[in-house]
Amino acid sequence: MNDQTETIEQPEDETEDDYALRNRVVAAAIQAANDGDRALLLEVFEPLHPADIADLLEQVNVQERTKILQLAGDYIDGEILSEIDEDIRNEVIETLEPSVLAEAMRTLESDDVVDILEDLQDVQQEAVLEALDVVDRIAVEQALAYPEFSAGRLMQREVVIAPEHWTVGDAIDHMRAQSDLPEQFYHVVLVDPRHRPTAYVTLGRLMSSRREMPLQSITEDSFRVFDAVEYEGDIAYAFNQYHLITAPVIDENGRLVGVITIDDAMAVLDEEHEEDVLRLGGVGDESLSNSTLEIVKRRFPWLGVNLATAILASIVISLFEDVLQAVVALAVLMPIVASMGGNAGTQSMTVAVRALATRDLTGSNAFRVVRREAVAGLLNGVIFAVVMGIVGVIWFGSPMIGFVIAVAMIVNLLVAGLSGVLVPLALDKVGIDPALASGTFVTTVTDVVGFFAFLGLASVVLL
Amino acid sequence: MNDQTETIEQPEDETEDDYALRNRVVAAAIQAANDGDRALLLEVFEPLHPADIADLLEQVNVQERTKILQLAGDYIDGEILSEIDEDIRNEVIETLEPSVLAEAMRTLESDDVVDILEDLQDVQQEAVLEALDVVDRIAVEQALAYPEFSAGRLMQREVVIAPEHWTVGDAIDHMRAQSDLPEQFYHVVLVDPRHRPTAYVTLGRLMSSRREMPLQSITEDSFRVFDAVEYEGDIAYAFNQYHLITAPVIDENGRLVGVITIDDAMAVLDEEHEEDVLRLGGVGDESLSNSTLEIVKRRFPWLGVNLATAILASIVISLFEDVLQAVVALAVLMPIVASMGGNAGTQSMTVAVRALATRDLTGSNAFRVVRREAVAGLLNGVIFAVVMGIVGVIWFGSPMIGFVIAVAMIVNLLVAGLSGVLVPLALDKVGIDPALASGTFVTTVTDVVGFFAFLGLASVVLL
Repeated sequence: MNDQTETIEQPEDETEDDYALRNRVVAAAIQAANDGDRALLLEVFEPLHPADIADLLEQVNVQERTKILQLAGDYIDGEILSEIDEDIRNEVIETLEPSVLAEAMRTLESDDVVDILEDLQDVQQEAVLEALDVVDRIAVEQALAYPEFSAGRLMQREVVIAPEHWTVGDAIDHMRAQSDLPEQFYHVVLVDPRHRPTAYVTLGRLMSSRREMPLQSITEDSFRVFDAVEYEGDIAYAFNQYHLITAPVIDENGRLVGVITIDDAMAVLDEEHEEDVLRLGGVGDESLSNSTLEIVKRRFPWLGVNLATAILASIVISLFEDVLQAVVALAVLMPIVASMGGNAGTQSMTVAVRALATRDLTGSNAFRVVRREAVAGLLNGVIFAVVMGIVGVIWFGSPMIGFVIAVAMIVNLLVAGLSGVLVPLALDKVGIDPALASGTFVTTVTDVVGFFAFLGLASVVLL
Repeated sequence: MNDQTETIEQPEDETEDDYALRNRVVAAAIQAANDGDRALLLEVFEPLHPADIADLLEQVNVQERTKILQLAGDYIDGEILSEIDEDIRNEVIETLEPSVLAEAMRTLESDDVVDILEDLQDVQQEAVLEALDVVDRIAVEQALAYPEFSAGRLMQREVVIAPEHWTVGDAIDHMRAQSDLPEQFYHVVLVDPRHRPTAYVTLGRLMSSRREMPLQSITEDSFRVFDAVEYEGDIAYAFNQYHLITAPVIDENGRLVGVITIDDAMAVLDEEHEEDVLRLGGVGDESLSNSTLEIVKRRFPWLGVNLATAILASIVISLFEDVLQAVVALAVLMPIVASMGGNAGTQSMTVAVRALATRDLTGSNAFRVVRREAVAGLLNGVIFAVVMGIVGVIWFGSPMIGFVIAVAMIVNLLVAGLSGVLVPLALDKVGIDPALASGTFVTTVTDVVGFFAFLGLASVVLL
């Protein structure tokens, strides 16, 4: 049926309309800011979601942003602030009047305040903390006591709990009697007398069960708890793997201290992915809001490492100056060797890095995956050896050149397949993020081995 | 405070333990299958989540998988099937007894059946459809009538609705009286008399409101509806951007036909990520479960395209055989030009592709981003020009070679920055996924321009 049914790719027109609309909105906001027309600016903002206002602020340049923020004044609330990319959050917060900032913070839930605070500089952090009510400040300070990127930072502290022995009726009556239920909750967490979470019940299940039913008999299988110090990336993985909606968080004594909800886990999954993509692309932590100088500074180290490895490849080539001098066709063909090896290595590496991130590549199947990559590299190597052998003969009229490039192709694609999976596995083993450093190592290996095989064989055969 | 607090990277020991545990479990399952010991196999499976059993089946090889499946028999239920990677789902389903398959399908919700069916071959699809009850079959067939990757395929059809004029008490009484509420729901959707969704109320809010409160007065701001034919990737984006938990889906007349929940949106977001990463790495749709021949077949076309572009670069070089013959140092330095250009281009492209995927790069800021990339490329070019100029002079004792590589570096990094953002923008404009094809185009541009600038200038200066 796959081929019979219509498939949606990207709905072009809609996307185009969407873009056009966004562009008009951004242009209108800039216009309003330039004219100092506050009424117009607020009119532009009115229909927008806070996340879209944050995106708008990220898309304009720094001068425009300052003007817009000053004009909008107290329209900038906590929700907008918590949506703003952390790269420009410092800048935005410095632009805001202290009173506006304090008011914005007071309207947020404690986990959102924590999320904003952790990226601020100390002076700003203190200013914000002072603006909070005592109760909120204590909650925020407790959350900040947990390590960065931990469950403790991600969780909300507001949880609806019930003793294990309660019935559905007890739980409903208890909730109906409460005046301050959390804004967002989907489960009632059952706790034992020592306040340790033991199970949970969904609100939907509660609604559809008889009053006399014990809560114990309608708990969900999906129940999982996390330690407050657990790494947020592992939590996001677990939410996706086990289809969790809510998960209780416990302290070192097993006591309930908060819950994580799926929307926060989804945001973490998205951030983790962003990090992987950028690291694989040889870019650190970077966004469109960064200034030109910042991106020069952030990309420079990666280019520097790349230069060092490229020089290594050049040194290999310089060992074979004689044969290059004798047969200039080799210099012409060199980029093909490097490019094919680099590409095949990147393919194999991308699959391995992704499989490590999704826990699909483990000790159980590592050997099989390595063997598969080696054989696949060899097979593609043979295919391209034939192709390049023929190209070499036709282009340069020399069967020997054809032979040399063909053999180099086989060696290089075999090594590319192997190093593409072995390098990420090794980095993962020693605790380095494979997304971060695999690329450099893999292309260094394919360049060095490729040039060595190609020019070395050429020296033997052609000199 | 950032630098004062402890930061979690990857919790090494835990991960190691985790891996070790998984490896032991996989080994035990293989052992049980080889010994034909069903009791042991089920003992291994018992503590595992269906998603983990599916992962286990993905990690063993095809012979082991067949043995395990035959031994496990009717232990393989719908939940396990729906977690299995689509690449091996056909194989697994063929291994199962028809009666086991039919029973497995009957226990699933209709959206999970759809998810499994859409990847099956026609014959298998019909066999599964026949195994379903009439009511389920009709629901599944209706879902399959929506395009692949659409909201209609992703949604569940079971929705809890309430007329707009109801109070909290009405809604609670209605739900308490129902016998077949959906397994999973977090909102009550308000519909008008023509069954069009107009708002929703969270179950939590319902619990904390007085009985006489009109539902209309406790609706959520986050309410958003999607068309049944909308692309699932756009829906996943919207869930993450607007922190949605549930979203109603409507037909072409605006009538409610189902709801999408965040756990399904999170799974789509993860799949979209996977696609982006693999495409950026020059791999199509591939997983660790693919056989060696399959990966050879899938990677071959990408390598073929790469070969074509590498030959283009070689042709450029062949234009300058004279100067290469005269100054062999140029051949030694060529890979540095190619590698630095390719790397800088990939950096700029990665940021652009990611920003397009997250809708951060739009018509409003495209010009600013292009200018930023150009200036950043130029600045890094100047820095590396100085470095390489010095290296060139020291290594080859020739100021002229230093001068040539320095100028080539500036030209190449400028072009890399520009093409890195212009190529994805152009591909996006003409409706091609920038993740899919940007890499090839960008490195072709940097190779061709780089070699042309380097060798061309060398011809003028050195010959």
